[in-house]
Amino acid sequence: MGTETEQLTRPSLWWLDPPSGPAVALLDQTRLPVEECVLTCRDVPALVSAIQRLAVRGAPLLGVAGAYGVALAAHRGDDVTAAARQLSGARPTAVNLGWGVRQALAAYRGELEPGRPAGGQRPGQDRPPGAARAAMAASAALAAARAIEAQDAAASRAIAQLGLGLVPGQARILTHCNTGALVSAGEGTAFAVILAAQRAGRLARLWVDETRPLLQGARLTAYEAARAGIPYSVLPDGAAGSLMAAGQVDLVLVGADRIAADGSVANKVGTYGLAVLARHHEVPFVVAAPLSTVDFTTPDGQSIVVEHRAAGEVTTFGGSQVTPEGADAYNPAFDVTPAGLVSALITERGVLQPVTPGKLRVLEAGDIGAGALTGTSVEL
Amino acid sequence: MGTETEQLTRPSLWWLDPPSGPAVALLDQTRLPVEECVLTCRDVPALVSAIQRLAVRGAPLLGVAGAYGVALAAHRGDDVTAAARQLSGARPTAVNLGWGVRQALAAYRGELEPGRPAGGQRPGQDRPPGAARAAMAASAALAAARAIEAQDAAASRAIAQLGLGLVPGQARILTHCNTGALVSAGEGTAFAVILAAQRAGRLARLWVDETRPLLQGARLTAYEAARAGIPYSVLPDGAAGSLMAAGQVDLVLVGADRIAADGSVANKVGTYGLAVLARHHEVPFVVAAPLSTVDFTTPDGQSIVVEHRAAGEVTTFGGSQVTPEGADAYNPAFDVTPAGLVSALITERGVLQPVTPGKLRVLEAGDIGAGALTGTSVEL
Repeated sequence: MGTETEQLTRPSLWWLDPPSGPAVALLDQTRLPVEECVLTCRDVPALVSAIQRLAVRGAPLLGVAGAYGVALAAHRGDDVTAAARQLSGARPTAVNLGWGVRQALAAYRGELEPGRPAGGQRPGQDRPPGAARAAMAASAALAAARAIEAQDAAASRAIAQLGLGLVPGQARILTHCNTGALVSAGEGTAFAVILAAQRAGRLARLWVDETRPLLQGARLTAYEAARAGIPYSVLPDGAAGSLMAAGQVDLVLVGADRIAADGSVANKVGTYGLAVLARHHEVPFVVAAPLSTVDFTTPDGQSIVVEHRAAGEVTTFGGSQVTPEGADAYNPAFDVTPAGLVSALITERGVLQPVTPGKLRVLEAGDIGAGALTGTSVEL
Repeated sequence: MGTETEQLTRPSLWWLDPPSGPAVALLDQTRLPVEECVLTCRDVPALVSAIQRLAVRGAPLLGVAGAYGVALAAHRGDDVTAAARQLSGARPTAVNLGWGVRQALAAYRGELEPGRPAGGQRPGQDRPPGAARAAMAASAALAAARAIEAQDAAASRAIAQLGLGLVPGQARILTHCNTGALVSAGEGTAFAVILAAQRAGRLARLWVDETRPLLQGARLTAYEAARAGIPYSVLPDGAAGSLMAAGQVDLVLVGADRIAADGSVANKVGTYGLAVLARHHEVPFVVAAPLSTVDFTTPDGQSIVVEHRAAGEVTTFGGSQVTPEGADAYNPAFDVTPAGLVSALITERGVLQPVTPGKLRVLEAGDIGAGALTGTSVEL
């Protein structure tokens, strides 16, 4: 696999044209906040590996990464269908990943065989294209990835603007996991709202759940908060309850990795517990996510496939054993919060308050990316 | 401060007579499960340090430790009143610590000045005792410590027996922090019930909250479960909600560090969130604690002083920085669960179901240690 690392600053993920590329470069999030290292993925297996070990992560950015991955395969002359399948399967829960892959694949195929209906061919049947047409198809895949990136940045801006309306003055906001620029082509989802609140002078304090086992809150959200000059405190996930009981939380604000058609929200494990605590304390529990996170092919929360990750994430820390040798671990990456516990869902097209399947459908029927949201139009 | 370490196996804490002592020896819990090291505290400052850095911890064992600390000061000919004050103030939340100290101090003073009413002298007024009487007083303090140890072991057995009645068949029990032999002269509190369930063939699985920030669950409860052959899985604290939502938890069983007169339970941070989740899922939330954990001088949950510990416990791990430099942390060691969320309280004298101030008073009026429970009879 072709990867190399170097010191650099952001953005989170970008395309490298020749002569440096073709390649997908990304900020290695496993090294933050101690080091800011760029990982250059020169082929799809390298990108898949980066996705699986969470060097690049977060629902919106995974959509962008998946699309650029298809463009990378196309530019290299690889089997694009096989690459698309590898990318889509890298992580099972974040719906944006497969969505981004399908968008870029549809663009690629549309250019390769203009008359062919999307999804009308069985996998592995791509005929060897002529060089000129192959180059045009690769360019189309890249253009699709860039469009997804631009769309995500625009969604982030809209979410920030719409979400700000839900933030009271002098707000003490509790967040979980990481939802800022690191997971987005823009300023993120929940964190974009937090940044907007900070700029509007409405943010008194950001409570950052450390987010075990991989500490995305302590490592990444704290890093983004520190860079933005936001007053923040990191807390063990188990301390959120006592904060709420003490009346120290005005709003819980999180992102999402997949939202089912019934409004159930899959997000980083621990989110569901926060939602139950928020309800118990009558604190608003708000989710911010682009519509690309909604998967209408997943009917309900129970149908969401939750990724279970290796026990070692829990039983070791920084390479050192924490538990007794051979300890078993229960390590789901995500949990599912039913729509009934979600006070509001902020999307780029509007705020759902409360969240209902009907309202989600109305948003889906809008003009941006409609149809593509269902993700069923391109067969991998 | 006089401390030394050596390799050994358990118990958790014991007295060393001359020629090895006088000293209080203890299993250094900060080194577990990787190493089993004994820390020998040859003076009270060494023991206070061990208590503060959690080398010895857990409500019942702290009562024993405090009493042995008084005996140690007496055997060394130190200022026993000053030693008692240092020991009592080592950690503010665990009520048993001060209780054990007062028990041993009362025995010491009772022997030193037989006619003097307990608490009838102002601090620092101990007259230099004659050598023979001083030796008898030291022996009385040691006997009191041994009595507390025996009483704790008996309480542990009674709690296990009474608690077993609350465990259904094929139970999947979720626990938080560490409540076994490491925190007790016996088999512990909640963990004693778990062991009883295991022996009775009623335990299908033990879910072990890792218990951030200091991982007492992942390190210590997992260690005790592994030694006992209990089938267990460690989980990030934030994953408890999804376990309950999946119907995988039949009972939540925890210990306590201080119980107020209104039945509010202070226990390791994260306990309160479990109680709220248990209520939401209609899972019984049960607390096991000896009556020495009840502090009738603390009227309610809001009056419980919660220890806040150093930010470094959250911002670093194994000496490595996790968060950005300078990150603030919210790090309370405990949280408070109101009695209304506690399905049952198992004590050595009976099970309170539900927990009410009146029932607590009735238990207090029993014969074992009555009066001493209020902890007001000996002035430090």
